Amino acid sequence: MKEILQKLTEGKISILEAEKQLKIMQIQEINDFAKLDTGREARTGIPEAIFAEGKDDDDLIKIILRGTEIGRLMVTRLEKDRYHILKSQIDTLKDKGFKIEYNKKARILLIKNHEIEREGKIGVITAGTSDIPVAEEARITAEEVGCEVLVSYDVGVAGIHRLFSHIKNMIDEDVKAIIVVAGMEGALPSVVAGLVDVPVIGVPTSVGYGVGEGGFTALFAMLQSCAPGIAAVNIDNGFGAGVFAAKIAKQSLK
Amino acid sequence: MKEILQKLTEGKISILEAEKQLKIMQIQEINDFAKLDTGREARTGIPEAIFAEGKDDDDLIKIILRGTEIGRLMVTRLEKDRYHILKSQIDTLKDKGFKIEYNKKARILLIKNHEIEREGKIGVITAGTSDIPVAEEARITAEEVGCEVLVSYDVGVAGIHRLFSHIKNMIDEDVKAIIVVAGMEGALPSVVAGLVDVPVIGVPTSVGYGVGEGGFTALFAMLQSCAPGIAAVNIDNGFGAGVFAAKIAKQSLK
Amino acid sequence: MKEILQKLTEGKISILEAEKQLKIMQIQEINDFAKLDTGREARTGIPEAIFAEGKDDDDLIKIILRGTEIGRLMVTRLEKDRYHILKSQIDTLKDKGFKIEYNKKARILLIKNHEIEREGKIGVITAGTSDIPVAEEARITAEEVGCEVLVSYDVGVAGIHRLFSHIKNMIDEDVKAIIVVAGMEGALPSVVAGLVDVPVIGVPTSVGYGVGEGGFTALFAMLQSCAPGIAAVNIDNGFGAGVFAAKIAKQSLK
Amino acid sequence: MKEILQKLTEGKISILEAEKQLKIMQIQEINDFAKLDTGREARTGIPEAIFAEGKDDDDLIKIILRGTEIGRLMVTRLEKDRYHILKSQIDTLKDKGFKIEYNKKARILLIKNHEIEREGKIGVITAGTSDIPVAEEARITAEEVGCEVLVSYDVGVAGIHRLFSHIKNMIDEDVKAIIVVAGMEGALPSVVAGLVDVPVIGVPTSVGYGVGEGGFTALFAMLQSCAPGIAAVNIDNGFGAGVFAAKIAKQSLK
Amino acid sequence: MKEILQKLTEGKISILEAEKQLKIMQIQEINDFAKLDTGREARTGIPEAIFAEGKDDDDLIKIILRGTEIGRLMVTRLEKDRYHILKSQIDTLKDKGFKIEYNKKARILLIKNHEIEREGKIGVITAGTSDIPVAEEARITAEEVGCEVLVSYDVGVAGIHRLFSHIKNMIDEDVKAIIVVAGMEGALPSVVAGLVDVPVIGVPTSVGYGVGEGGFTALFAMLQSCAPGIAAVNIDNGFGAGVFAAKIAKQSLK
Amino acid sequence: MKEILQKLTEGKISILEAEKQLKIMQIQEINDFAKLDTGREARTGIPEAIFAEGKDDDDLIKIILRGTEIGRLMVTRLEKDRYHILKSQIDTLKDKGFKIEYNKKARILLIKNHEIEREGKIGVITAGTSDIPVAEEARITAEEVGCEVLVSYDVGVAGIHRLFSHIKNMIDEDVKAIIVVAGMEGALPSVVAGLVDVPVIGVPTSVGYGVGEGGFTALFAMLQSCAPGIAAVNIDNGFGAGVFAAKIAKQSLK
Amino acid sequence: MKEILQKLTEGKISILEAEKQLKIMQIQEINDFAKLDTGREARTGIPEAIFAEGKDDDDLIKIILRGTEIGRLMVTRLEKDRYHILKSQIDTLKDKGFKIEYNKKARILLIKNHEIEREGKIGVITAGTSDIPVAEEARITAEEVGCEVLVSYDVGVAGIHRLFSHIKNMIDEDVKAIIVVAGMEGALPSVVAGLVDVPVIGVPTSVGYGVGEGGFTALFAMLQSCAPGIAAVNIDNGFGAGVFAAKIAKQSLK
Amino acid sequence: MKEILQKLTEGKISILEAEKQLKIMQIQEINDFAKLDTGREARTGIPEAIFAEGKDDDDLIKIILRGTEIGRLMVTRLEKDRYHILKSQIDTLKDKGFKIEYNKKARILLIKNHEIEREGKIGVITAGTSDIPVAEEARITAEEVGCEVLVSYDVGVAGIHRLFSHIKNMIDEDVKAIIVVAGMEGALPSVVAGLVDVPVIGVPTSVGYGVGEGGFTALFAMLQSCAPGIAAVNIDNGFGAGVFAAKIAKQSLK
Repeated sequence: MKEILQKLTEGKISILEAEKQLKIMQIQEINDFAKLDTGREARTGIPEAIFAEGKDDDDLIKIILRGTEIGRLMVTRLEKDRYHILKSQIDTLKDKGFKIEYNKKARILLIKNHEIEREGKIGVITAGTSDIPVAEEARITAEEVGCEVLVSYDVGVAGIHRLFSHIKNMIDEDVKAIIVVAGMEGALPSVVAGLVDVPVIGVPTSVGYGVGEGGFTALFAMLQSCAPGIAAVNIDNGFGAGVFAAKIAKQSLK
Repeated sequence: MKEILQKLTEGKISILEAEKQLKIMQIQEINDFAKLDTGREARTGIPEAIFAEGKDDDDLIKIILRGTEIGRLMVTRLEKDRYHILKSQIDTLKDKGFKIEYNKKARILLIKNHEIEREGKIGVITAGTSDIPVAEEARITAEEVGCEVLVSYDVGVAGIHRLFSHIKNMIDEDVKAIIVVAGMEGALPSVVAGLVDVPVIGVPTSVGYGVGEGGFTALFAMLQSCAPGIAAVNIDNGFGAGVFAAKIAKQSLK
Repeated sequence: MKEILQKLTEGKISILEAEKQLKIMQIQEINDFAKLDTGREARTGIPEAIFAEGKDDDDLIKIILRGTEIGRLMVTRLEKDRYHILKSQIDTLKDKGFKIEYNKKARILLIKNHEIEREGKIGVITAGTSDIPVAEEARITAEEVGCEVLVSYDVGVAGIHRLFSHIKNMIDEDVKAIIVVAGMEGALPSVVAGLVDVPVIGVPTSVGYGVGEGGFTALFAMLQSCAPGIAAVNIDNGFGAGVFAAKIAKQSLK
Repeated sequence: MKEILQKLTEGKISILEAEKQLKIMQIQEINDFAKLDTGREARTGIPEAIFAEGKDDDDLIKIILRGTEIGRLMVTRLEKDRYHILKSQIDTLKDKGFKIEYNKKARILLIKNHEIEREGKIGVITAGTSDIPVAEEARITAEEVGCEVLVSYDVGVAGIHRLFSHIKNMIDEDVKAIIVVAGMEGALPSVVAGLVDVPVIGVPTSVGYGVGEGGFTALFAMLQSCAPGIAAVNIDNGFGAGVFAAKIAKQSLK
Repeated sequence: MKEILQKLTEGKISILEAEKQLKIMQIQEINDFAKLDTGREARTGIPEAIFAEGKDDDDLIKIILRGTEIGRLMVTRLEKDRYHILKSQIDTLKDKGFKIEYNKKARILLIKNHEIEREGKIGVITAGTSDIPVAEEARITAEEVGCEVLVSYDVGVAGIHRLFSHIKNMIDEDVKAIIVVAGMEGALPSVVAGLVDVPVIGVPTSVGYGVGEGGFTALFAMLQSCAPGIAAVNIDNGFGAGVFAAKIAKQSLK
Repeated sequence: MKEILQKLTEGKISILEAEKQLKIMQIQEINDFAKLDTGREARTGIPEAIFAEGKDDDDLIKIILRGTEIGRLMVTRLEKDRYHILKSQIDTLKDKGFKIEYNKKARILLIKNHEIEREGKIGVITAGTSDIPVAEEARITAEEVGCEVLVSYDVGVAGIHRLFSHIKNMIDEDVKAIIVVAGMEGALPSVVAGLVDVPVIGVPTSVGYGVGEGGFTALFAMLQSCAPGIAAVNIDNGFGAGVFAAKIAKQSLK
Repeated sequence: MKEILQKLTEGKISILEAEKQLKIMQIQEINDFAKLDTGREARTGIPEAIFAEGKDDDDLIKIILRGTEIGRLMVTRLEKDRYHILKSQIDTLKDKGFKIEYNKKARILLIKNHEIEREGKIGVITAGTSDIPVAEEARITAEEVGCEVLVSYDVGVAGIHRLFSHIKNMIDEDVKAIIVVAGMEGALPSVVAGLVDVPVIGVPTSVGYGVGEGGFTALFAMLQSCAPGIAAVNIDNGFGAGVFAAKIAKQSLK
Repeated sequence: MKEILQKLTEGKISILEAEKQLKIMQIQEINDFAKLDTGREARTGIPEAIFAEGKDDDDLIKIILRGTEIGRLMVTRLEKDRYHILKSQIDTLKDKGFKIEYNKKARILLIKNHEIEREGKIGVITAGTSDIPVAEEARITAEEVGCEVLVSYDVGVAGIHRLFSHIKNMIDEDVKAIIVVAGMEGALPSVVAGLVDVPVIGVPTSVGYGVGEGGFTALFAMLQSCAPGIAAVNIDNGFGAGVFAAKIAKQSLK
């Protein structure tokens, strides 16, 4: 501010010009706090993310097109059938230099004009086959934020001793956080948190039936785990877990 | 293992001795995984913690005395009145070189035979006066795990601009995680997560009445925050948040 | 009443006629209290509204035709596909001088034989694209009751500073109430109520998943907002919010 | 801003002085938006309100003393027994020119250094004796915000025809909003909203047992009333209803 | 029993025959208590009722055919589409002298080999068009149990004064119970119970959205009505209300 | 009405007098519909009932004294300790010819200036000792409305065969309805409804723990009983069941 | 039956006598099915159990005295303070040859006139100190039904390897079922069921706070455990688990 | 272990060989505890079970093919339509000597390379036609684990006396446990547990509507049954009940 006022008294800029520059400066300060979503990706590495469910096709296309004017973009919860309906319109972005990747399992669409360098590692573990879509959403999200991700998905099939060796491997690779995706009684995050010292992020899934329908039991079990060092995100929220774990990994790079 | 077998073939130890040594080794390996609570503190910095609620006085004293044989100890959710009842028996531990500290607000009793060096910083923020006990539980826990803790408790009274300056200060001090304690509609963690890039750990409190009774609205609001990068712990679980945040801070020291 | 009795004693009307007139008068008095829906629109400006969900097509057509005998009408929650099924039968009302307007986003069908003059202003704000249908239902309803409506729907995309400028604009335009539509953690009404002195009406939406499914978290968050001066309507109830806000605006015209 | 810059160029103030004045101005602008609680009362008429439940006695006294440095104050949910404990310390404020009033029914403590002029009217209705404390909380709050309040509390005892005459009286007195407090099945706000055109604010109470315990049925019944023009506040939240109704009444004075 | 033993001592029957007759008698006694569904209709007038939902087509046909061997039958919750699938197989029962009636609104299929005489009256009231299917289920059920039923379905459309006249008419006709079907906030049974002295049976419906979804608010509102003399049946359970009301009506015929 | 007008034309009364008489007549008509609580007892036999919980002592005494000006009164949910506090003030009513009876088990206080003749019978059954207070509330209420009540409370202790004989006895005595009070899994009303043809009114109790706490399981089990002919009242609502059953019994006396 | 009829035809008994004997026989048959609680203990080994909570002192004493006329008795959920109030009256039973034992932890009072022989073994495991009262209730119950019980309560303190060795010991001792008592996230039964082939009975406890309050998370986690072979009883229901496990153990003795 | 070390000292094996053998032994020990799912069937008789719901077709086929490499397999919750889609790929397993059986009612697919010998009996009872699929899932599961199963499904239709005779038959056949499947108010397990001494396993079903939707009432009713000796599994969990009952039956064969 002093600089602007100095210029004014020195007659280098007019009062009008000074007023304008001060206002711009002020808005930038507010923006620094308010952290506008535009430009966000450049500063923080978290790409703009659009939740596709509950938006109609017209709105979704509009938001995607507007969003890509600013930069890289990811669309979450986009079912395969719906992707195929929107595909032709999205493909026009290729002409603008965007790379388009759709991951069926994770139901994520990536629209990128550049790749993110990956630094810092996290792990993603799940035991049940039905939990893999949520785990994949977490993996891709963390990668797009700029992390390297180690996964272990077939734990349940191969038995508990492979869980041990996979976790040991993650610790050896110095992961900074482990995401554990689990439905049903949601006990896996407790088991993992009992074995490691890195923060464990529990992601409950809505897999299950009867008293487990909706994923609330898994969520509540994670929240009151006997093993300290667990925090949880919303049911099926692989995206949120991916961002959170990546934020942890980024801390140690500073 | 090779070493033991080598000694056996060299006749330096008997079969019986080898068998014994192998068994001990094997148990140690399992223990490495199972991470027994005994000895835990030495390795990880997380002191043994005892949840006082729901345990009767006799059991609590027994567990405390047994626990201090292993080392440092913290007792959580110990109401002031109850502390005064148990005080005389706990004070006998002073003869064994323990330092006894009781924090009325946080309802935490610390029994320590040594101090923990504090490395790595975290922040703790709360807006409501009624949320301070939970925030204090988080602060003391994180300190006992070995973190330096910056607090900001009077945000609500002094207005939102002080929140901004406090958060700015925490970021300048390079905190690795911020714990945000909030009851009622639980919106504060979202506000904070919208302003910073460090992981935000939401702690819902059971403060409130009507639809807010029990803290579920605060919890659920945190879990589905529009601002990514938030994870939550159980309602009123300052201890869990303190351990989790400290684990994050420890990652960047490795 | 005195008047009728006077006429009777003066012999201008017979006892029978007096009795009949007194009974009519009495029913009118009860009607004044009971406020029959017939004739309602003329007096209060609130058009007869029919909730289409849960009514079969035959019943809906019957109710619409009977309703238009009395006057202006609005049908809410009428999905586009269903409108096209009923269209041909409704279009016959054009011959009777009705104007037919269907709004796809708001899922509202308007059947009008005259336009309402708009006096008094309210504002409608929403941040999420998925919340727009409910916001539109509120807007159209308030307009049909006779209010001028200022809207701000793209807040979330353009950033918080546009929210500030939009709200400032609404205040400058002297809106008498602001409807804030929000799903997920439902924090927006609190933010708005913290910035303005006009009454804020929160409309929770059922947008969301996991712990937010059904909109209860958004509703409960609004009900226990730290910012006083908020009241809420049922989840997704844009119609109710529109009527309520319009009633507020009408108060200052009296 | 132009003014300050003008002075600077005219040499009336130094750069340092200009910088300082610009910063103060900027903070005031943010404050205008952020609406700091300090000074709030002067601008809006809503006195600083402190919710006593969940705060310990020491904290409560501290907040009251600090609060009165700024001005008028109301303490809600302060039980009689607790008031008597705090009384001696609060009474010291009398020396500073404060008037102290405690309302047992409403559990509200008023600490005022001036009276508020009352303009604009609202009504408060309740049928059940058990609902009166919440109704009184609403009444006193609205009065302290500067409204005139008409009450009708004995409706249930005297029968429905007195309800009719009381409501008629309120309408004749031109109330701008009616607060209806009701527990159990929460039907009264619907009945009132069916009779009047002014906005009706429903306050559910936690009175009741069995399926009605906690007040959720009353709340949910109000939220889905067949009569449009009702909005609700949190269970037992007489304070919130009082502020909201007063805000409506203030709209027509502008 | 004495009779059988008498015959035995008189040599009119053998021990074997006596044993057989005693066993038959004993089973009949247990049956009198256990009230086997076979033969039930003959004694009590309540026809065998089959709930179609949740049964597959094969099972349903089997149960219907077996049931008609015993007598009259009603199938509830049978959607129109499903009825048309089963129609050809059911129509074969016409050859056995059964009359087949399907009511689309009530979703009830009647298979009768004789008509029931109707004695004793009950009333069925509903205000909302969407509640009519449940009301019709109640009406047909009560008629099949042998009651005369007075209905009033268009109350909501024609206004409250027609409700009064309809209720007055029911009382004049000496109905022994009134079934009131209501969704949303479920207030109508309270209103009716406040006007009449006959027992009122509330039937909550699952009509509604937001906080009213599923019908729980309507149910809970009925259960805690301020007007004594109301009891409720399960949500949407028109059948149960019909049987219950008919049982009341039958009491006064004894 | 004709009569009054006739008198007017005949000059027997003045216009003023006619107007006054017509207004009185009109209010009486409304009162007939609105059924004011004053005078209610005389017409319907249901005494004015006051729910003591949630009312403070001062209010309760005031309501009782005012109520007895009209006639007979019952106070429900009045705990023994509280009765003893109020006793001296209530006893003053003895001077006005009231008889005062307090039933400790049922927690009911009766204040009567005349006895009600008992006509028509109902039954009250309960299995658990803990359910007896609610059953007694039902019994006394039904008696005060003017019914004869047969009770069977020790079923659970003496075994199921006594239940059978008690029910048989009730049927022999021609009870018109049976109230069945049950907590825990709430199965008893189903068993009874399977044995008798009279209407069964289920009263769930809040007795129980774990999943049964609060009485919701018992309520929900009654509402979806396989045995048709059951309706339920609110949890612990012995009063409501008593009134409802009595209303049924009164039907057959008409 | 043949025998009685034979005697009748042989003239050894009169018709009256035959009728009487046949009726007695018939009642005994019903009793065999209805399994009256009187005499139950003799046949099944399950002593009469009285749940003390929710019964007042007078009723409880009456039930105990009446119960001991039949035989052995256990009173559950009898708090220590309450036991001391009732003690003097219960002690009179010593004169009748009863032995009186009160277990403070389990809150069980045993009144026995003979000891039960213990055959068949079960195990009881719990990890948390706060879960011990429920585990003790299960242990004493199973012992009183006639089982030998192996317990392992300090698992949590000594670490997971002791759990392994305790479970191994139970299997070596050939327990027929293992009761696992657990609160919080309720994961222990799953762990145990993953290690053994005997049936595991989960007993959730109401220990916990926040989302775990009331024990529902523990219950639901047990019900949807990934490890098959678990069934659950009500929250805190040590008695039920004890009876159920004992019934399993008794099966293999047949 | 001694054996290996012996061989080493005797020079029969090298240190390397000894080390390898010791490690294998150690893994086997851990495996003994961890009970890997591979090989599980051979040891325990419980075949590998795959829950088909929530897995996509590709994953399901992969898991089935991998699973059959180990041995016998059962796929639960596989709807008929889906089975027909997968049929061709599964049928290829016939070439590898597998027998393929699909049970439409139970929605179970069995893939077996050998039959299990059946020893030990259990019973399965259900009253409602809609509960049969869950009962069949339990039956087939228990048979595949190696039990003989007695069923009684038509109880409800034929009347309660057939229930008695069926239960009597099961007891005569010496079943070791009875599975009772029930929806609605879930009372049947209580009735059965009141009649027999063998353990009763309740399986609540999600059959029902209104307050019974989802099966929670049935579950909660079973959990708090007045008849001791009942434990419950998750809603609709026929598989879990089958395994649990079979485990009980297997106990008495040891």
